[in-house]
Amino acid sequence: MLELIEQKKMKRSEADEELSQMQTKLIDLANAVKAAKIPVIITIDGWAAAGKGSQIAKLIKYMDPRFYNVEPIRIPNEQEKRKPWQHRYWMKLPKQGEFLILDGSWFSDTVKSYMHGTINKEQYKRRIEDINVMERQLHADGYLIIKLFLHITQKEQLKRLKALEADEFTRWRVDDHDFENNSHYDKRFKRFDKLLEATNTEVVPWNIIPANEKLTAQYEIMRIVTEAIEGAVAAKEKGEEYIMPAQFKPHSDASNYSRPYKFNIVKTKKLSEIDMNKSLTEEQYRRKLKKYQNRLFELQNICYQRKIPVVIAYEGWDAGGKGGNIKRVASALDPRGYEVKPIAAPEPSELARHYLWRFWKRLENDGHFTIFDRTWYGRVMVEPIEKITPEKRAFMAYLEINEFEHQLTDWGAVVIKFWINIDKDEQYRRFKERENTPSKQWKITDEDWRNREKWDEYEEAVNRMIKLTSTDFAPWTVIEGNDKKYARIKALKTICDRLEERLGI
Amino acid sequence: MLELIEQKKMKRSEADEELSQMQTKLIDLANAVKAAKIPVIITIDGWAAAGKGSQIAKLIKYMDPRFYNVEPIRIPNEQEKRKPWQHRYWMKLPKQGEFLILDGSWFSDTVKSYMHGTINKEQYKRRIEDINVMERQLHADGYLIIKLFLHITQKEQLKRLKALEADEFTRWRVDDHDFENNSHYDKRFKRFDKLLEATNTEVVPWNIIPANEKLTAQYEIMRIVTEAIEGAVAAKEKGEEYIMPAQFKPHSDASNYSRPYKFNIVKTKKLSEIDMNKSLTEEQYRRKLKKYQNRLFELQNICYQRKIPVVIAYEGWDAGGKGGNIKRVASALDPRGYEVKPIAAPEPSELARHYLWRFWKRLENDGHFTIFDRTWYGRVMVEPIEKITPEKRAFMAYLEINEFEHQLTDWGAVVIKFWINIDKDEQYRRFKERENTPSKQWKITDEDWRNREKWDEYEEAVNRMIKLTSTDFAPWTVIEGNDKKYARIKALKTICDRLEERLGI
Repeated sequence: MLELIEQKKMKRSEADEELSQMQTKLIDLANAVKAAKIPVIITIDGWAAAGKGSQIAKLIKYMDPRFYNVEPIRIPNEQEKRKPWQHRYWMKLPKQGEFLILDGSWFSDTVKSYMHGTINKEQYKRRIEDINVMERQLHADGYLIIKLFLHITQKEQLKRLKALEADEFTRWRVDDHDFENNSHYDKRFKRFDKLLEATNTEVVPWNIIPANEKLTAQYEIMRIVTEAIEGAVAAKEKGEEYIMPAQFKPHSDASNYSRPYKFNIVKTKKLSEIDMNKSLTEEQYRRKLKKYQNRLFELQNICYQRKIPVVIAYEGWDAGGKGGNIKRVASALDPRGYEVKPIAAPEPSELARHYLWRFWKRLENDGHFTIFDRTWYGRVMVEPIEKITPEKRAFMAYLEINEFEHQLTDWGAVVIKFWINIDKDEQYRRFKERENTPSKQWKITDEDWRNREKWDEYEEAVNRMIKLTSTDFAPWTVIEGNDKKYARIKALKTICDRLEERLGI
Repeated sequence: MLELIEQKKMKRSEADEELSQMQTKLIDLANAVKAAKIPVIITIDGWAAAGKGSQIAKLIKYMDPRFYNVEPIRIPNEQEKRKPWQHRYWMKLPKQGEFLILDGSWFSDTVKSYMHGTINKEQYKRRIEDINVMERQLHADGYLIIKLFLHITQKEQLKRLKALEADEFTRWRVDDHDFENNSHYDKRFKRFDKLLEATNTEVVPWNIIPANEKLTAQYEIMRIVTEAIEGAVAAKEKGEEYIMPAQFKPHSDASNYSRPYKFNIVKTKKLSEIDMNKSLTEEQYRRKLKKYQNRLFELQNICYQRKIPVVIAYEGWDAGGKGGNIKRVASALDPRGYEVKPIAAPEPSELARHYLWRFWKRLENDGHFTIFDRTWYGRVMVEPIEKITPEKRAFMAYLEINEFEHQLTDWGAVVIKFWINIDKDEQYRRFKERENTPSKQWKITDEDWRNREKWDEYEEAVNRMIKLTSTDFAPWTVIEGNDKKYARIKALKTICDRLEERLGI
C-alpha cells in the first residue's frame, strides 16, 4: 500500500484557509458526536519522526478536552503483560460520544513486537486476526475507528532525525537505534506494508497520510477525520450502519488474514435429551468431594506456577444451584488465587461501551482463576428475549463470543463453561421452598416467576447457544442439576479433567 | 501491646463445638451484612509462618464466594508505585454488603517498607498518620474494619520455619532471610509493637491473636469476626454508629501518631468581597495567552521528567466558563500527559463505596496532570443543599477533603483549586444567551434555573468551603470570571506560578 502514496505539497495559503474551515467544523462535529452518542477511536501510527505527536496536538486543538483522551501506546507494563495482549486496548475504550486518540496502536505494537522478537511468526499471524476481529467487533457495536498512518520517505526521515539530534532540547528523543533503523528503511517498509495490507479491511480501512510535508499531512488528517465523522453522524441519524469510504482495498494475498476465525464446533445434546435422573448418595458425595477438592487445589498450584489463567463461566436456570456449586469449587482453592465475579445488570459506564468490555475488565491476571456467576451469554439469552438488545445485533454475539473465548485461549487460558440444568418441576419445587423458608425468601422475586413463564423460549435459546458456541477450545458442559450433590461433583471433576488435559498430567 | 499476650491452648473438644456453632452463625451474618449493606474489611497481619493463609481459608470456608474477595498484599507493582502509597488500598475497597479480606495490609506494607529502607523515618511517621486517617475515614462512612495480628513466639516461629523447610512441597516458601529474621525476633517484636500501638485507635482497634496454637487462633478469629459483625449489624439496624469494642487502648506515647492532621489554613476573602470588574483587552489576552501557554508547556515537560503529579480542581457557578477555561489549559499541554475528568452523578458502583473512592480511582500517574471538571467538593455543596447527604455526614468532609489533598501533596502532587466566580447578573445573561443560541441550548436545563434560585444558599456554602479548605498546601484560587479572557489568563498564570514555586525555578 505504501508504494502507491505520492508525497504531495499544498500551497500554504490554500491549506490555511481550508484548515481553518475544517477546524471550525470539527468543533461542531465533536458536539454532534456527543449528541449522537458515537464512540470514536482515532489511531495514529507511522514512521519514527513522522510527526505523530505534533499532528495529534493540532487535531485536538479545537476539541473539548472533556470529551477526548490521548493515550500513548508503549511497551506493555508488567500488569498488562499478565493479561491478553489486546486487553489494554479494551480497557481504554471510549464511552459513547467520546474520543480516544491513540499515539501508536495495536498496529505498531504488533509490528514492533514481531521485529524485536517478542512474538514469533505464528503469534504475529494470530495478532493480525485479533486486530481484524477487534476492529470488526467494535465497528459492529457502533464505534467509529479512524486509522491513520503517517508516511515519510527514507530521505525525509534521515533529515528529521538529524534535525532532532542537532537540537539540544530534542536530542534525547533520538539514538543510534533510530539511525540504524533508517538505514534499514526498506526492510521496515516491507513489514509495514504487509501489515497495513493485512489489516486494511472494508469495515475499517487504513488511511495513509503522505507526511513529508507537515502542512499537507495536517490537512489530510483533518479532511479524513472530519469526513469520517460527518459520515458516521449522518448514517446514525438515518439509522444506517456506517462504513468508512475505503481508500484502499485489501490485496488478495491479505485475505488470508482478514477472514474471521473459523471454529470447530463439537457436537452437543439438546436439553431435552439429557438424562436428568443422575444422583449421588451422601456417602459417595463426601468421598468424591474430598477427592476432587484436594485434586483441584493441587492443580491450582501448578496453574499458578505456570501462569496459566483459568476462566470458569457459570450459567443455568434460576434456582439451578449455581451459588452452592461455585462455593464448592471456591472452597477448594487458595483464596488468593481466584475471584468470583457476580454479573448483574450493567451500569451506565458499561452500557456506554461494547458489551464485552465489562467482561474484559473483570479478567484476573494469568495464573489466577476468574469465576463468572452469569456471563457474556446474557447477550444471547436474556437480552433478545427481554428485548433489551435487538435480535439481529444480539445474534452477532455467537461469533463475537466464540472469538472472545478463542482470544482467551490464545492468551493461554483454560475456558470452562457450565450450564446447570434442572427440569421445570424441580425449579417449581425450589421456588416454593424458597418462598416458604424465611432465610431464603430474598432469593426469590416476582421476576423469577415471570422468567419461568418463558421457560420454552429460554430453553430454545439455551439449546441454540450451546449448539453454536460449543467450540473445541471452549466447549459447554451441561450439568444435570436436579441432584445438587451430583452437580457439584460433576463441576469439580470437569474442572480437574480440563486442567489435567491442559497441563498434560 | 504484644507483651501482654498470653499464648493459650483450648481443649479440642470444646473448641470444635464452639467453632461449628460460629461457622453456622457466620453464614447468617454474611447474609445480614449483605442485607444491611455494610462493607467489611478484614486484615490479617502477623509474624512470618504465623498461619495467615490457612486461617483465611478457614474463615471464608463458610462464606458465599460471590460476596468476598481475598487480596494478598505484596510489594507494590510498577503501576502502584506511580500512585499515592494508599491508592492500592482504596482501589480494593469492597462495595456495601461485601467482604474484602487482606492477607497482609497497610500495616505489614508499612513495617516492611521501613525495615527494608524503602521509606525513611519521616515517611514512616507520615504513613502512620495516613493509616489512622484512612481507617477513620472508612469507619465514618460505615465500613467495618477488623484488624487481626497473628502473634507467635520466637521459638514457635523457628519450629515452623524448620518444618516448612523439611517438607519438599513447602520448602520454596522459606529462605535464609526468614531464619535471619527469626534470630532478630526481638528487634521485629519492638517494631511491630510500636506500630500496633500507634495504629490502635478507638474507632478501629487491633486484635492480637495468640497463634502458637492453631486451633485456639482459629477460635479467636472466629469469635472476634462474628462478634464484630453482629455488633455492626445490630448498630446499623438501630441506626447507631458502631464502634468495635477495643481490646487495647493506645498507649499515651502513641497519641502523637493517632491525632488527626492539623492543617494551616490561609486567610481568604468572601465572594462578596471580590472585585468582579477585572478584564483584559483582546490584545492583552492574545499576548498573555501565548506567553503562559508556552510557559506551561515547558513546565509540564519538567514535571513529566521529575515525575511530579499535578492535580487541578475546577469548581464554579453554572455557566461560569469552566469548559472554555479548561480548554485553554489543556491545549497548552502535551496531550499524552494529561486527562480531563468530568464529574457527573455517581454510578451505582460508586455510590456503594466511600465517596472519595471515585476520585482516588481517577488519579493519573505521577508526572501527569489530572484535571477535574467538578470535584470532591460536591460533597459539601450540592449534596447537603440537595439533601443527597445528611448535613452532619457531609460536613465531616471538610476534614476528610483536607486530609485527602494533604495525602496528594505527600505523594508529591501540586494541588491547584479554582473557584470560577461570576455574579448573578452575569449568570442570567449567559443563561439567556444559551437559551437563544441553538448550538448552545443543550448546555442549559431546567435544573440550572432551579439551582439559580438557591444562589444565596450556594454562596454561603462556597464561602464556608473556601474558608475551611484553603490549606497552605492546597489553597483555593478564586477567579474573577465575569470576563472570560481575564479568567483564563488568571488560571494559566496561577498554574504556572504554583508549578514554578514547586519546581524551585
